[in-house]
Amino acid sequence: MTPSALLDTLAARLGPAQVLTAPDAMATHLAETRGLYQGRALAVLRPRDTGEVAFAVRACAAAGVPVVAQGGNTGLVGGGVPQGGIVLSLARLDRVRAVDPLNATLTVEAGCILARVQEEAERAGLLFPLSLASEGSCRIGGNLATNAGGTAVLAYGNARELVLGLEVVLADGQVWSGLKGLRKDNTGYDLRNLFIGSEGTLGIITAAVLKLFPRPASTATAWLGLASPHAALELFSHLRERAGGRLTAFEYVPRFGLEIVLRHAAGARRPLAGEHAGYALVELSSAGPDAPAELEAMLASALEADLAEDATIAASAAQAAALWSLRESLSEVQRHEGGSIKHDVAVPVSRVAEFLERATAACEADLPGVRVCAFGHLGDGNIHFNLTQPVGMDKAEFLALWPRFNRIVHDIVHAFDGSIAAEHGVGMIKRDELSRYKDPVALDLMRRLKQALDPQGLLNPGKVLVDPGKILAPRDEVPAPFPHGQT
Amino acid sequence: MTPSALLDTLAARLGPAQVLTAPDAMATHLAETRGLYQGRALAVLRPRDTGEVAFAVRACAAAGVPVVAQGGNTGLVGGGVPQGGIVLSLARLDRVRAVDPLNATLTVEAGCILARVQEEAERAGLLFPLSLASEGSCRIGGNLATNAGGTAVLAYGNARELVLGLEVVLADGQVWSGLKGLRKDNTGYDLRNLFIGSEGTLGIITAAVLKLFPRPASTATAWLGLASPHAALELFSHLRERAGGRLTAFEYVPRFGLEIVLRHAAGARRPLAGEHAGYALVELSSAGPDAPAELEAMLASALEADLAEDATIAASAAQAAALWSLRESLSEVQRHEGGSIKHDVAVPVSRVAEFLERATAACEADLPGVRVCAFGHLGDGNIHFNLTQPVGMDKAEFLALWPRFNRIVHDIVHAFDGSIAAEHGVGMIKRDELSRYKDPVALDLMRRLKQALDPQGLLNPGKVLVDPGKILAPRDEVPAPFPHGQT
Repeated sequence: MTPSALLDTLAARLGPAQVLTAPDAMATHLAETRGLYQGRALAVLRPRDTGEVAFAVRACAAAGVPVVAQGGNTGLVGGGVPQGGIVLSLARLDRVRAVDPLNATLTVEAGCILARVQEEAERAGLLFPLSLASEGSCRIGGNLATNAGGTAVLAYGNARELVLGLEVVLADGQVWSGLKGLRKDNTGYDLRNLFIGSEGTLGIITAAVLKLFPRPASTATAWLGLASPHAALELFSHLRERAGGRLTAFEYVPRFGLEIVLRHAAGARRPLAGEHAGYALVELSSAGPDAPAELEAMLASALEADLAEDATIAASAAQAAALWSLRESLSEVQRHEGGSIKHDVAVPVSRVAEFLERATAACEADLPGVRVCAFGHLGDGNIHFNLTQPVGMDKAEFLALWPRFNRIVHDIVHAFDGSIAAEHGVGMIKRDELSRYKDPVALDLMRRLKQALDPQGLLNPGKVLVDPGKILAPRDEVPAPFPHGQT
Repeated sequence: MTPSALLDTLAARLGPAQVLTAPDAMATHLAETRGLYQGRALAVLRPRDTGEVAFAVRACAAAGVPVVAQGGNTGLVGGGVPQGGIVLSLARLDRVRAVDPLNATLTVEAGCILARVQEEAERAGLLFPLSLASEGSCRIGGNLATNAGGTAVLAYGNARELVLGLEVVLADGQVWSGLKGLRKDNTGYDLRNLFIGSEGTLGIITAAVLKLFPRPASTATAWLGLASPHAALELFSHLRERAGGRLTAFEYVPRFGLEIVLRHAAGARRPLAGEHAGYALVELSSAGPDAPAELEAMLASALEADLAEDATIAASAAQAAALWSLRESLSEVQRHEGGSIKHDVAVPVSRVAEFLERATAACEADLPGVRVCAFGHLGDGNIHFNLTQPVGMDKAEFLALWPRFNRIVHDIVHAFDGSIAAEHGVGMIKRDELSRYKDPVALDLMRRLKQALDPQGLLNPGKVLVDPGKILAPRDEVPAPFPHGQT
């Protein structure tokens, strides 16, 4: 089938208005969030239900044309950037199929925006805890396809842990209807977790049964000033011991991080009088009304044990939001300081302070003046180990050092038994790094799975795996993994 | 290679004392817990480390001889029963490889007995929550291979949710070293969950990194008398709303269940003065000291709302143990009342009361006098829907009705979007039932995964999947799935 015959077939089923081919109409689907990549595609499809998705995938399979699934296109690793073929937008699959408060489940389609999923849970008197910066525009299908992390992983786990059932369109257009809302189900292999986190390379998630949780009756939020990352780790241990599962966030922000937030984020105010080497944002959630008093007692004992230098507890929801905003602005404000080279890594929690020291020293030794902005989910061992360019250095010249800093940072991560792709995924940006650091037996297993589920290699080719099979697009069609087009 | 040459090769590497061939020495490895099946094998191997496991699997692969991995051989579905080939006992791989309290992880080998894993966690000041009746003899490798459930799933999840990393010997003898202790790791496909729950048919788990949790500072246990399963469900909802993640157990016992425990279990005493249609065993765990007072307040409001008819809270650890013992004796005492036909099923929590009513009525209508003993993890929607024979009926005659009651019970489970294998797995006993009820697309995916990871079909053949490939043993070598040899 020729490409134009394929588009005709698709237009006949989906309607011509849902097969976008004009450059303007396709633009937002071909652009990548940070401007690191520019995609290209035959067309962008906007199916409205699972049947149309299956039809489109079947037609593409028959024509041998690649399919790249897209949710909100907010990913940070180039996983949704098409290199030809068809973009399949899940945006119109945005129905809530079922709410079952007693079973504590919500069945939603892949295109539902994450914030809406949170709202639907709240409407049922429950909590869907997945929470991340792009929640207003990312879509749940993309969150699941990438096994999204975020700030609530500490207490509730990654996206993977929040799913009971899935509906998936397979590479040949068959539909796996696995939308069960069961807490226990050992009827065979765990297909669900195979698709979650596979970044659209093994199947296309069209709907999911999500786990909901009781809403906490009260929460309390605090901001602490700390002497070092080691103190942060000791503080974390102290709080976890006392709070158990009620410790619902433990985020780390370095001095430089707070400085640039205060410099660039509108309305940001210094939360403590003095300056400290680092800061922790801590949240306690309780099934009872006493989270603030409980957190206050825990902080008092932490201050007494010299685990923190200073602390403040939010006295209102507005104050809590202001503290969270300091943390959440951090991703955005970095660009005001020039180029950023970013690493999304994890190490065992017990080694996170040691990792921060070692990696910081190594980067500073390599490029004097580089400003390490390492922040994030310390309680999960997950650090966004970002490097801000030295003041006055040429931005492009700095960004050209990306591969070199990858080697420095990822070598240390690897020596710490860590992960070079903690919560953002692999996509294109870490694909070649993965083939360097991942256990070769694991890579071989991944290739066998890819071959078993997508023998034609048509689902999101060029992502996650280097050369999963001869059928895939040759490597030279894939852009360099560390491009310098950052905006 | 002839079988005897294979055994010589194995004896040369493992030592002749670790290659058991005498019927007496092999007996416990060939017997099945409930006497439903009798296995047969060329030999039982007792390797002492991962290298020896890999060597043995490689040798068997070269010889085309099946390998059945065994942990404590406590499974209830015939999953560990060999039908020829080699039994590979993991019992001697019982080292604790690492304890990291700050990372809250424990790295153990597959042969560690579950109770010992719990003890090691306790020694580190932490909790490994997996808890089930056979914890004194089952081994962690088997718990993971079957994705074990148990009584702590409500708060902590199934075995699957308690694992961060795995080491696995693959069908060709390669070793996948995935022993990472990371809370976030999105470096490619989720291999871990593919092996967990695959019942030794995709690979042999030799070690794991387990997640540990803070130990609750206090727990409280109560026994409640209830008017009906519907009341049990309302009570569950009431408690979950108030306790959130602190509700660490919610078990259901019907009137008939308590009766037979009081009749047959040594030392069992009636926990409440009166009799009730059903009972709930409830546990609350708290990071603070006040679990008893908190549970008392919750029960008071439940009694006031008429969700329970009577309640008692354990006043001591001994009393709590006595209440738990009533629940845990239930599995054992059933045999004193004659034959039992057992079903391990799950439905959405919201439908569990309706399911109990419907399935009970259907069984009683089919065989007047049959005594339904449906109990278990109501908070997970997981019911052990067991049928005790009518008084005076011939036991063998009753057990011959197993396939007929499977059809009645499983048809209803299926209509409720439930699972016919909730926590015990598929093994042999539910293999053919699975091929009847499981979505054909899911079965096809399972076969493709089996083919991709074990193309020779040598890992635990005849289990989980009917006829996964032509290479497997023909079906007529597998015993009938509903044998009547129950003891």
